[in-house]
Amino acid sequence: MPVSDPPDILVAVDLVGIFVFAISGALVAVRRGFDLFGALVMAGTTGLGGGFLRDVLIDATPPAALADWRYLVVPLLAGLLTFAFHPAVGRLERVVDVFDAFGLSLFCVTGALKAVEFGLGPVPAALMGMVTGIGGGMVRDLLANRPPVVFNGTLYATPALVGATVAVLLDRVSLSLGLVVLAASGVCLVLRLLAMVLDWRAPLPHGPANV
Amino acid sequence: MPVSDPPDILVAVDLVGIFVFAISGALVAVRRGFDLFGALVMAGTTGLGGGFLRDVLIDATPPAALADWRYLVVPLLAGLLTFAFHPAVGRLERVVDVFDAFGLSLFCVTGALKAVEFGLGPVPAALMGMVTGIGGGMVRDLLANRPPVVFNGTLYATPALVGATVAVLLDRVSLSLGLVVLAASGVCLVLRLLAMVLDWRAPLPHGPANV
Amino acid sequence: MPVSDPPDILVAVDLVGIFVFAISGALVAVRRGFDLFGALVMAGTTGLGGGFLRDVLIDATPPAALADWRYLVVPLLAGLLTFAFHPAVGRLERVVDVFDAFGLSLFCVTGALKAVEFGLGPVPAALMGMVTGIGGGMVRDLLANRPPVVFNGTLYATPALVGATVAVLLDRVSLSLGLVVLAASGVCLVLRLLAMVLDWRAPLPHGPANV
Repeated sequence: MPVSDPPDILVAVDLVGIFVFAISGALVAVRRGFDLFGALVMAGTTGLGGGFLRDVLIDATPPAALADWRYLVVPLLAGLLTFAFHPAVGRLERVVDVFDAFGLSLFCVTGALKAVEFGLGPVPAALMGMVTGIGGGMVRDLLANRPPVVFNGTLYATPALVGATVAVLLDRVSLSLGLVVLAASGVCLVLRLLAMVLDWRAPLPHGPANV
Repeated sequence: MPVSDPPDILVAVDLVGIFVFAISGALVAVRRGFDLFGALVMAGTTGLGGGFLRDVLIDATPPAALADWRYLVVPLLAGLLTFAFHPAVGRLERVVDVFDAFGLSLFCVTGALKAVEFGLGPVPAALMGMVTGIGGGMVRDLLANRPPVVFNGTLYATPALVGATVAVLLDRVSLSLGLVVLAASGVCLVLRLLAMVLDWRAPLPHGPANV
Repeated sequence: MPVSDPPDILVAVDLVGIFVFAISGALVAVRRGFDLFGALVMAGTTGLGGGFLRDVLIDATPPAALADWRYLVVPLLAGLLTFAFHPAVGRLERVVDVFDAFGLSLFCVTGALKAVEFGLGPVPAALMGMVTGIGGGMVRDLLANRPPVVFNGTLYATPALVGATVAVLLDRVSLSLGLVVLAASGVCLVLRLLAMVLDWRAPLPHGPANV
């Protein structure tokens, strides 16, 4: 079940995910007072960073984003729009968060399936799926010189890991690619949206940390 | 002298090193107030990050840790235990530091030998050994948003570089793998423990830095 | 037009660029109070980091710097000199900035040409050229725990991108390697020096960022 030449519909959804992730990177850049170039780099690394990390680790280099111009144009466009209209984009942040959940859901699934295709076992493949989903945001936070937002108690990585795991498992029972992606990313999406609406939190350390 | 299929005893000691490194990563996470997921990621990146960096640079991808489930379970376990019992683990930090010295000693040697096996010359191979030993802690500090602890005057990287160099040199005179590992990691371990006990310090810049 | 075995003159200029970049890394290390080891690592990662990033992304691993001892000795030397004589080096910073412009100009061009050689299309190859030029400084800033200086409004990345683009375009009309490098890095150099002298700035976000 090769996913290296994915159907057009998958590419389209993938690009939407990259677009939304890129907006979140560019917003952080604007809020830090970075210049236009910084906003574009933050857009690019947030949109593509998770896939880059995965591709370097599973030896699928050069990453797909360096072989297909659409993967470069989309974050560029997101960065430019966010830089120009950041007050409006900032006000839409709640909407952006919902799209972000879509991006996360698709990235964790396509990332896991690509890792399977490159020969990884089920557990590492699921991990790579999660890395694909959350890696871009982590690179964004590194560049913005702050601790990863994904560590702050938001339930964000767990839905990605669950979605990636479902994808790996369903892929083994040889469903069609479309069904696997739909079901697995659906699981991640529902979990993530529920976590947002019900404010589910990941456990924080209890008691004082004696330093 | 292939080290890609290392004897069970080496794997066991390797896993102990990863376990201890992972504890140090999870402790930093707890002290920063990261959530459970953050503690697990910090455990994983600290325990496995040095090897990941080395494997990506010498093109030994996917890294060994993604092909052997034990390399994933061990940091996970270390992260869970540290998160649950962090006050106790924090009080044992001096003990953890001694185990950390063991981990460093083994990582710098196995890292250097793997780089030799992948065709690197003696100087880059020794460097890759050092990177294997200190890389995980550096990734941990990046994620914790602080400057690398290894730059603060502690004599930590130098023992790793010496141990890696000894390993590369002994490997050339075709000793048995066991002897090379024992002698080279012994040198690193003794240097590191002496540095801890006698508080040896790396030179700091003298005079005021005119900014 | 293979650039993997570049003529001696290119290697020499490349090493000068690495030397100057490494000085800038070691200066930041001294100003942060890092120890000697930290200064050497900061010198090495700043001098070689851009090329490492590029080589990992285009799958040209192990990076050239790990296969040629001169690429390791040069940043080491720069780090040692800067650590020992940092007050003097710090006073020369304006001169260092000019040499830095030379380094940037060469790196963006050789980086782009290497990416072309490894099969990347023109747009990603130009991007990889820019990454080669600015990547080392970004890794330096990550390790120094500060936001990338290249995002602060200085016109630095744009000349690199222009130079890399010119290199990719000229390379297509099959000029000789020497001419391509000379013309493309000349364009980058002039732009960067003009930006320094005339204090050209990249656009900053306008209006308050509503967080």
